[in-house]
Amino acid sequence: MTEPTVSALSGLKVLDLSRFIAGPHCAMLLGDLGADVVKVERTKAGDDTRSLGPYIAEESIYFMMFNRNKRSLTLNFRNPEAQDLLRRLVLEADVLVENFRPGTMEKMGCGWDDLHQLNPKLIMARLSGFGQNNSMSAEPCFDGIAQAITGFMDLTGDPKGSPMMAGTFLIDYATALHATVGILAALNHRNKTGEGQVVDVSLIGGAASMLMTAIPEFLVNGRCMTRGGNRDRYAAPANTFQAKDGVWLHMIAGNNAHFPRFARMIGQPELLEDPRFDTLEGRMTNVEAIEAVAAEWIAQHTADEVLAALRRAELPSARIRTIEEVANDPYMREARHIIDVVHPKAGVVPMQGPPVGLGTTPSTVRRPPPMLGEHSDEVLRQWLDMPEGDMRRLRDATII
Amino acid sequence: MTEPTVSALSGLKVLDLSRFIAGPHCAMLLGDLGADVVKVERTKAGDDTRSLGPYIAEESIYFMMFNRNKRSLTLNFRNPEAQDLLRRLVLEADVLVENFRPGTMEKMGCGWDDLHQLNPKLIMARLSGFGQNNSMSAEPCFDGIAQAITGFMDLTGDPKGSPMMAGTFLIDYATALHATVGILAALNHRNKTGEGQVVDVSLIGGAASMLMTAIPEFLVNGRCMTRGGNRDRYAAPANTFQAKDGVWLHMIAGNNAHFPRFARMIGQPELLEDPRFDTLEGRMTNVEAIEAVAAEWIAQHTADEVLAALRRAELPSARIRTIEEVANDPYMREARHIIDVVHPKAGVVPMQGPPVGLGTTPSTVRRPPPMLGEHSDEVLRQWLDMPEGDMRRLRDATII
Repeated sequence: MTEPTVSALSGLKVLDLSRFIAGPHCAMLLGDLGADVVKVERTKAGDDTRSLGPYIAEESIYFMMFNRNKRSLTLNFRNPEAQDLLRRLVLEADVLVENFRPGTMEKMGCGWDDLHQLNPKLIMARLSGFGQNNSMSAEPCFDGIAQAITGFMDLTGDPKGSPMMAGTFLIDYATALHATVGILAALNHRNKTGEGQVVDVSLIGGAASMLMTAIPEFLVNGRCMTRGGNRDRYAAPANTFQAKDGVWLHMIAGNNAHFPRFARMIGQPELLEDPRFDTLEGRMTNVEAIEAVAAEWIAQHTADEVLAALRRAELPSARIRTIEEVANDPYMREARHIIDVVHPKAGVVPMQGPPVGLGTTPSTVRRPPPMLGEHSDEVLRQWLDMPEGDMRRLRDATII
Repeated sequence: MTEPTVSALSGLKVLDLSRFIAGPHCAMLLGDLGADVVKVERTKAGDDTRSLGPYIAEESIYFMMFNRNKRSLTLNFRNPEAQDLLRRLVLEADVLVENFRPGTMEKMGCGWDDLHQLNPKLIMARLSGFGQNNSMSAEPCFDGIAQAITGFMDLTGDPKGSPMMAGTFLIDYATALHATVGILAALNHRNKTGEGQVVDVSLIGGAASMLMTAIPEFLVNGRCMTRGGNRDRYAAPANTFQAKDGVWLHMIAGNNAHFPRFARMIGQPELLEDPRFDTLEGRMTNVEAIEAVAAEWIAQHTADEVLAALRRAELPSARIRTIEEVANDPYMREARHIIDVVHPKAGVVPMQGPPVGLGTTPSTVRRPPPMLGEHSDEVLRQWLDMPEGDMRRLRDATII
């Protein structure tokens, strides 16, 4: 937890009003890049994830994963004086991030028109399930719903089994990233014009954007993509196979650069002359046959033997690892994919490092996830120059 | 395909040397936001995805999905004169995107040190499997390998079945987004200092960053997260259920705000007094029991009935839709999650729209995916003021 001379977003003031994952992850990425992020949480309970397990020393791991590099200030959002206070904070902010149900900010007198008039340089990032202004905007949505509604679940899983969710909330993460891209693009525009704008991203739009070729394949070619296990949709052989010792491994040897190396690796160069397999299209048509060849060879060797051979042939491959194996891999520390964050109550918390690597202004972790309201006074003093007496009154009136 | 007065990244010149998904998607996002993106492709074959099916009128859908809003220029990367030409283009560029195996750009005399010296304002985004400078950098990696090696596959799928891949190349998409965030953050820094920098993102780092609570849960609490089907890891009941008519639907009714509405919806308010279910922790401990209650009620009603009831109770829910249902949903067009792009050979290609919504400077699609080398002359003329004779000579020598 060190601070370099300068960060990419040094001096950028961010108000993070968001809860759960997509909004908080977006604001955390800005924090990782050096922004001054103030998380504005409802009084008493704070972000919903503070009361979601699992815990370390009564601190929610879930909350900690999405809220490092932030300070916490509490506001009783339903109180008009708190809403005034929020607007005063907006006057000082560069960016506001929110993921309430569309319409909520408007009810608080903090819709885009209000805030833009108040602070024309403000960039307001709005993350929602379906987007701000359309026929579906009012519907509630979580990651799993987005996976179900956009066809993602139907694309995932064994063809003989039921539709599957991806193992983590990937659509939330992607939406966080789309919002961050939008904020930074808007910042570039503001650097030229002085004017802020609204960023409007949605779980459904984010999920749809990651459907590969599915939409045109159906609408033009009439082919409805569905789940196919771990088989690659565009090259063969590329799939998960089981070695002689029962270990699962994933191998990609299907494109035209890979396949000759694969055929020689398994000692069957004659496959390259086989009219079923000598083109990528042939291998896609005869995918069961070519994967049977691969499976047979792999089943005759241990995972270590197979992986060593694949490595020599420079074919992408990996053992399917458990989280235990991942967490204990020294490379994960070496590359800073896992770092230690020291939390005042939870102690040393190893967590995933910032995913955006920058050469001159690296991402850093400068603050542990905050306790609820830990920085209310500090932020009100720094941002608004508020006297102690006023803070005491606000606290007594449960406005902060 | 209209151009607004101004885009967020108007005037930004991007050289996209990348292939497959992560790099091209990053450069396409910059193009969607208004940048002038020149895709630099190897002569003859171009991007590998140009020869990957499926096709529309012999044009690869795969290629089209990641390369709209770009012009195409060909270069014979192995030729020293082509490498010179590349360096001349770099002199004019703001951003370069590449996802070769680490070391490749260096072999071409176009490593970071070379290019930074040549053009100190250049931002160079490097996307790779494992990152540029560590013990694993030389290893080949594709999305499926990243899913296997980081535990993602072990987290996805039925607990009784084998590890599963997510239905599309989500790690590639995420890495594209991390690179885009890095480029735009570096651009903000450059706006202040005039200096470019290197952006170094990896599939493994990107995948690791999306593992939710898995790493600290294992390293601190010793609990190894693994796959659990579609059951939510943090709240209950929240899972996929089958209605009376056999239809699969996903429902999220597990957190403390949701559960009382759910209990009343199914006419069992007594669940709220049941010590097994009256807290979130209780429901997580007794997840089989509470999901059995949900499953029983849902199995007694058709999907339409269940979804109507869930909607009235404002509980997030959705039918698990096929790609056909998604592609034909009018909302997808209304919200511009699906748009039409007109391609000179493939005709009207419906594809996913830009996922980053901006109020004042909206993302736009101004160009269809380019034909190989379609804009070589145009770009060399515009960027380098190259005379026609020189271009002819370069083409005759198969340098472009």
